[in-house]
Amino acid sequence: MPEIATAGVETELQRYFAAARLRASDYGEHYVALWDCLEQASTGGKRVRPAMVLAAYAGFGGRDLSLVTPVAVSFELLHTAFLIHDDVIDRDLARRGIANIAGQFSDRALAHGAASGQASAWAVTAAILAGDLALSEAHRILARLPVDTGRRIRLLDLLDRAVFVSAAGELADVTNAARPHPLGVTEVIATLEQKTAIYSFEAPLQAGAVLSGATDTAIDVLGRYGRLVGVAFQITDDILGVFGDPARTGKSALADLREGKQTALIAHAGSTIHWPAIAPFIGKTDLTEPEAELARGLLRDCGAPQAADELARDHAAKAVEALDTPLIPAELRSTLTALADSAVNRFR
Amino acid sequence: MPEIATAGVETELQRYFAAARLRASDYGEHYVALWDCLEQASTGGKRVRPAMVLAAYAGFGGRDLSLVTPVAVSFELLHTAFLIHDDVIDRDLARRGIANIAGQFSDRALAHGAASGQASAWAVTAAILAGDLALSEAHRILARLPVDTGRRIRLLDLLDRAVFVSAAGELADVTNAARPHPLGVTEVIATLEQKTAIYSFEAPLQAGAVLSGATDTAIDVLGRYGRLVGVAFQITDDILGVFGDPARTGKSALADLREGKQTALIAHAGSTIHWPAIAPFIGKTDLTEPEAELARGLLRDCGAPQAADELARDHAAKAVEALDTPLIPAELRSTLTALADSAVNRFR
Repeated sequence: MPEIATAGVETELQRYFAAARLRASDYGEHYVALWDCLEQASTGGKRVRPAMVLAAYAGFGGRDLSLVTPVAVSFELLHTAFLIHDDVIDRDLARRGIANIAGQFSDRALAHGAASGQASAWAVTAAILAGDLALSEAHRILARLPVDTGRRIRLLDLLDRAVFVSAAGELADVTNAARPHPLGVTEVIATLEQKTAIYSFEAPLQAGAVLSGATDTAIDVLGRYGRLVGVAFQITDDILGVFGDPARTGKSALADLREGKQTALIAHAGSTIHWPAIAPFIGKTDLTEPEAELARGLLRDCGAPQAADELARDHAAKAVEALDTPLIPAELRSTLTALADSAVNRFR
Repeated sequence: MPEIATAGVETELQRYFAAARLRASDYGEHYVALWDCLEQASTGGKRVRPAMVLAAYAGFGGRDLSLVTPVAVSFELLHTAFLIHDDVIDRDLARRGIANIAGQFSDRALAHGAASGQASAWAVTAAILAGDLALSEAHRILARLPVDTGRRIRLLDLLDRAVFVSAAGELADVTNAARPHPLGVTEVIATLEQKTAIYSFEAPLQAGAVLSGATDTAIDVLGRYGRLVGVAFQITDDILGVFGDPARTGKSALADLREGKQTALIAHAGSTIHWPAIAPFIGKTDLTEPEAELARGLLRDCGAPQAADELARDHAAKAVEALDTPLIPAELRSTLTALADSAVNRFR
């Protein structure tokens, strides 16, 4: 990813959590611990969404960091909320090998003498509440932003669309898993776009541009770019989720296969005569590493990683093409072109 | 409860859900079904929170229904969001005998050929997302309200406090369940206040008053009244939850006992020499109706229902006392006095 300074976002998040922790201390140690967990959950990410807000804002000439930083923080907290609630849905107790909020509150319950049934209630409660708190703050930040009404309403509409469409995508992700045959590639892409591309790329880029006073047409262009580049990122993530080196990606190379995740890889494989041989491995919850290696071989044989990679590159190229208009200032175009390139050239 | 017309709130909610459903139709039948479920979850309640907003607004002379109705809807959707997420925490598939969102999506999953493990993923996903959508709209409505910045910020602060304190109360409710001895009555009341009284009474009353331009002191008085009356309502609810007629309360008379819910009844019983005889029944997950009847007898013998009722009446009386100032217009005082009376005189 091109370097976009997000240090102001870190400072602002630290300030916010310090204040929340102080306020929580009136309500007992568990609530303070919940805020500690929430801060941890929001820490250590790549700050992709703040970077999008900041890049678009600066790209259209915006210079007021006191205005753009809260907007960047808002989208980061939205992301945190989604990750936390996603973990509840997936019943995960860890993220990237570290105990998540549910995991930490489950341990906390046991340390406080709770029975194991109670420990899972602590875990779910803490995670649902933490997500609600982060989501609430994402809204609150935009609602309080000292800008004119027209601009505030447009920012609120972007956030609203991000929440509305992400929920549709998250639901589709779960309901798709029940379908007996693999999805087609069009459906896979629609779900990626809904679940991730809109809230992670389209909306933050457009929010930065709105705040900077960009024209409606330029904002539309950024939206199109964001959807395409978001899909390119996600397809590449899904390839790395099966073929990547866990030490470099930080992701298990078994999880997606075990879960039967409906990716572009699987969509391609499902359209080939190789599918009956591959199908038994996909969604096998106790898949071993040797079995996974067999599955990877079969996926390679049917051309799945190449096909998915081409699809990602095609999306990245179309994203860059969308920027080819004088409406997008040269420096912003160059940053976003580098971003699109990095979407499909990672860990190689 | 005194009659406060909330028909405008119904209309506004219907309008909102009709628009959301139309918008959801771009994302497939399951997402439309999710919005149907969310609308159902928001329907049929007593509209206590909207009534508080409307009563305070009109009480201080507010007359613009186009301004107060959205605020009333905002607090109702906040309540809907909390109920929905509360059901996820409690793993309930029904509310008042009717399948809730999780229950309906679990059935839906099975009807679409999902395995039973998948059905529970559909259920949790739908309920978490529905709560997030309702919570988001609660924020969005206040953020878009066409009022001056000062008033908007104050309304946003009330919503923020409601979310922050309710989360603390919800967490305390779950962590308290792990404590080996019954809580003291002070702790029980603190949790009721945090979990329910603030978002249901204090904040909606104050929001109506802020919108109407009431003085800070009057707003403080309403806050104090709201916390006290909210606690009076909750204590009475908890008495009815054990001693009420399920046909009239719409609540199982076993659920609270089975769950081991930490109520004023239990706090009182825990402070008497009768507790060792009562304790085995409290939190017994397979408690039978005959056992419950024994437990009720023991609770009566130790004076728990009387003590809890006195506590509720004491809170209601203090709530009414708080109103005894010329800052509160006579008609509002009369409405709120009737409300406090109804809090402790239900189903008798």
